[in-house]
Amino acid sequence: MREQGSVFMPRFDSSGLVTAVAIDRTSGRLLMLAHMNADAIARTRETGFAHFWSRSRGRLWMKGESSGHVLRVIEIRVDCDQDALELTVEAAGPACHTMAQSCFYRRIAADGSLERVGND
Amino acid sequence: MREQGSVFMPRFDSSGLVTAVAIDRTSGRLLMLAHMNADAIARTRETGFAHFWSRSRGRLWMKGESSGHVLRVIEIRVDCDQDALELTVEAAGPACHTMAQSCFYRRIAADGSLERVGND
Repeated sequence: MREQGSVFMPRFDSSGLVTAVAIDRTSGRLLMLAHMNADAIARTRETGFAHFWSRSRGRLWMKGESSGHVLRVIEIRVDCDQDALELTVEAAGPACHTMAQSCFYRRIAADGSLERVGND
Repeated sequence: MREQGSVFMPRFDSSGLVTAVAIDRTSGRLLMLAHMNADAIARTRETGFAHFWSRSRGRLWMKGESSGHVLRVIEIRVDCDQDALELTVEAAGPACHTMAQSCFYRRIAADGSLERVGND
């Protein structure tokens, strides 16, 4: 039912959250990963801009609310067991607070150290 | 340090887990989202095949260990605060246990219902 049905019923964890990833519509790149509670999902759907729940700050926030680097949400997909969301977005600027285009700007090298990826 | 440095030091949550997403190397599509503990990361790096920690079964598993639909890991990236990993993979078959190519095979329609995406 949850896996095959047409009813959206997110499977929130014990903290009331699902995981959400933002994918850039143009480049197809993974931009960031964050968490959403029911309010964040509702606000995102109402406004068309990605909202998340900040676990560290304990509050709802709109991505880009201070930086202006908002994420306009084109489509939301849900995974098989409905505990994860994929947001296809148009990014108004760098998705990462470090000013990298994507939060995933380092890869694990063969020696186990992290190296910066060239295209960020 | 954790955000800009070259030392891989994953920020595990209170359950000892980080979130991992698998992206198809060829199509660029998001295939699945799961969790890894330190053992899963180590086994993935040692073997070159994606291993995860199953929260429901409480054990380490190799993706595809029963289905044969393994994920060969080409690259691992880590995000800014090191609590999420991006695996670039080559998939030996459907990534989802439902036999869909990706676990994200439904989108939220304008009326709030889920609709199957055409390309899965």
